[in-house]
Amino acid sequence: MQYFLAMLQLTGFKSFYMGKLIDEFNSYREKMNEKILATDNKVIKRIYSVDTLAYQEGALPVKTKEMLGLVSSMVLRCDDCIKYHLGKCYDLGVNDKEIMEVFSIANVVGGTIVIPHTRRALEYWEELKSETL
Amino acid sequence: MQYFLAMLQLTGFKSFYMGKLIDEFNSYREKMNEKILATDNKVIKRIYSVDTLAYQEGALPVKTKEMLGLVSSMVLRCDDCIKYHLGKCYDLGVNDKEIMEVFSIANVVGGTIVIPHTRRALEYWEELKSETL
Amino acid sequence: MQYFLAMLQLTGFKSFYMGKLIDEFNSYREKMNEKILATDNKVIKRIYSVDTLAYQEGALPVKTKEMLGLVSSMVLRCDDCIKYHLGKCYDLGVNDKEIMEVFSIANVVGGTIVIPHTRRALEYWEELKSETL
Amino acid sequence: MQYFLAMLQLTGFKSFYMGKLIDEFNSYREKMNEKILATDNKVIKRIYSVDTLAYQEGALPVKTKEMLGLVSSMVLRCDDCIKYHLGKCYDLGVNDKEIMEVFSIANVVGGTIVIPHTRRALEYWEELKSETL
Amino acid sequence: MQYFLAMLQLTGFKSFYMGKLIDEFNSYREKMNEKILATDNKVIKRIYSVDTLAYQEGALPVKTKEMLGLVSSMVLRCDDCIKYHLGKCYDLGVNDKEIMEVFSIANVVGGTIVIPHTRRALEYWEELKSETL
Amino acid sequence: MQYFLAMLQLTGFKSFYMGKLIDEFNSYREKMNEKILATDNKVIKRIYSVDTLAYQEGALPVKTKEMLGLVSSMVLRCDDCIKYHLGKCYDLGVNDKEIMEVFSIANVVGGTIVIPHTRRALEYWEELKSETL
Repeated sequence: MQYFLAMLQLTGFKSFYMGKLIDEFNSYREKMNEKILATDNKVIKRIYSVDTLAYQEGALPVKTKEMLGLVSSMVLRCDDCIKYHLGKCYDLGVNDKEIMEVFSIANVVGGTIVIPHTRRALEYWEELKSETL
Repeated sequence: MQYFLAMLQLTGFKSFYMGKLIDEFNSYREKMNEKILATDNKVIKRIYSVDTLAYQEGALPVKTKEMLGLVSSMVLRCDDCIKYHLGKCYDLGVNDKEIMEVFSIANVVGGTIVIPHTRRALEYWEELKSETL
Repeated sequence: MQYFLAMLQLTGFKSFYMGKLIDEFNSYREKMNEKILATDNKVIKRIYSVDTLAYQEGALPVKTKEMLGLVSSMVLRCDDCIKYHLGKCYDLGVNDKEIMEVFSIANVVGGTIVIPHTRRALEYWEELKSETL
Repeated sequence: MQYFLAMLQLTGFKSFYMGKLIDEFNSYREKMNEKILATDNKVIKRIYSVDTLAYQEGALPVKTKEMLGLVSSMVLRCDDCIKYHLGKCYDLGVNDKEIMEVFSIANVVGGTIVIPHTRRALEYWEELKSETL
Repeated sequence: MQYFLAMLQLTGFKSFYMGKLIDEFNSYREKMNEKILATDNKVIKRIYSVDTLAYQEGALPVKTKEMLGLVSSMVLRCDDCIKYHLGKCYDLGVNDKEIMEVFSIANVVGGTIVIPHTRRALEYWEELKSETL
Repeated sequence: MQYFLAMLQLTGFKSFYMGKLIDEFNSYREKMNEKILATDNKVIKRIYSVDTLAYQEGALPVKTKEMLGLVSSMVLRCDDCIKYHLGKCYDLGVNDKEIMEVFSIANVVGGTIVIPHTRRALEYWEELKSETL
């Protein structure tokens, strides 16, 4: 048992555990996106590229755009979209108070049906923060 | 192996198994609600308190209000919200025929996309009933 | 001018004006429902009949069922469906406090996007009440 | 008065009246699409072009694709989108029985909240047919 | 006729005409909000106050919050909510390029069903700008 | 270990693994549908039968109707409904290019929030194809 725990420490158990939601989301997302693009459907390919274009620096800063993507994903209650934009927001330095204000607007506009998604969003946000401790 | 089964019986395997969906839902819900409220975002706190207020006895009885919350959650297809209101309905004595009539209105108004949620709702309802046998 | 007002009174201006939303909704609804049923599409015909069946007296009273239909229509933000169920609720004796509690649950569950529909719902409700003064 | 009616007949009052919904929809749509594209937002421009691309002949015939666009618009309850695809379906020779079967699937999948949109859809469909009598 | 045009100029025909959508929206909204609040339903009153609270200056600036409210309203396709947040964005100095980037994210996330709402949003935005020329 | 692998081959590990999503979906769906129908709620029973009726051969071929059901399920983002119609489409001989064109219209109409559902849809579609290799 002691050996088992030592092995876990060596293989970085904590970061593995903490990043479980993130790893699962990212690896599945990447794997399936590749398969989708490999089907060579032109319409879908262009949707992917317009999706990338939409969040690039423009009149509005990238950070604001990612928060716009996040709040839209929350009111439309798309957990995977929420995770994606949370990851981007984290990388762009959105802080805890800011993220909670995005959550709060999503909950006001979209109602209490957004609460279960807010629970999962906060859990994912905490994992994002713990990963890079 | 025999020892293992005996242990399961002693620890109340059946009720543990029957209440799996309920336990998972409640414990995750409570854990994350605490974390959400701990962020001290005033807007979200008030949404939680207005949510509580909305289902209190008024011109309409609590039981009716919980059925209104349930049917709304079904047509908006929010499984966690459905589970929450099913638990409340169960505690308030809504019976099988009544719950099926709530389900039926949700399916008529919201269409066949509500059916998968009705499957999970009935499974949860049955667990609620078996838990207290 | 006095003559004009007198003429309005004679032609029942007040009740005409008050019932404008109701008349428009009902006459269009009836005209188009007839045309839809005249197409003789079996699936749609059965949807219409199951719709009628769903709101009939059962384990739950008709009044509760109409409120369930109303709250569902509100969170799904279907103004015509709201008008229909408001009419039924009015006929079944749902009072002002009760209707506002249905509205309140719809606004809590569905969020502030339900507010514009609540405005139109209250306007229609007031017309229903004024019509039979 | 007689002169007025004669003038209406000369200017094709009937076809003008019958095509009212179509004319209003098309002229507003074209006017505002021009203004949207004139803002020169690249993302929106590409969405417009991918929208055109999606409905072009491919493995699936154009007619099937327009029916797919129609049924999607119905379950998402977007009246303007419904009108657009109804116009395309009409031009491509979709007949009455086929259009009603598209409507019926939309109503089964999306529920009775689709009915008010079906009323307006049938009204628009009838105008499309009467326009070219 | 010349007299008629002169009168129109005196009564400010242009600004009256340009602000038609804005005036209609605002006056109806205010009238019905008053009636809703007059019903004295505590839950709805608190939703109104939490709605106000959510858009106040915080970790995020008011301008960002109004854009979050706007994009949420667009993907949820609530025309009245869109008008409300457009008015706020205009007052806060959001410019044309920024507003189009909010529109573009709404259209990417929410799809082509958002286009009809974008048409009406741009029309309203242009009226907001012309009103104060 | 070698014994373990041999056993897996004997018990048809590959097809078992490949069909995991399909088996899970079908067995749960069947089990719960039986329970739902056993409650003997007339409204729900009729919804089930009208659901069957809607996809039967008519003016439109069954294959087109299943694609209409699929695209509706995608824009409404109902994973279980998507799986069901994918299974039907597969049985009816819809090919890869056709299914991707249905996916592409769903993504254009419904926006990038449909992408996560498209990932799961393609995974399920691949499992359907591998099952019968």
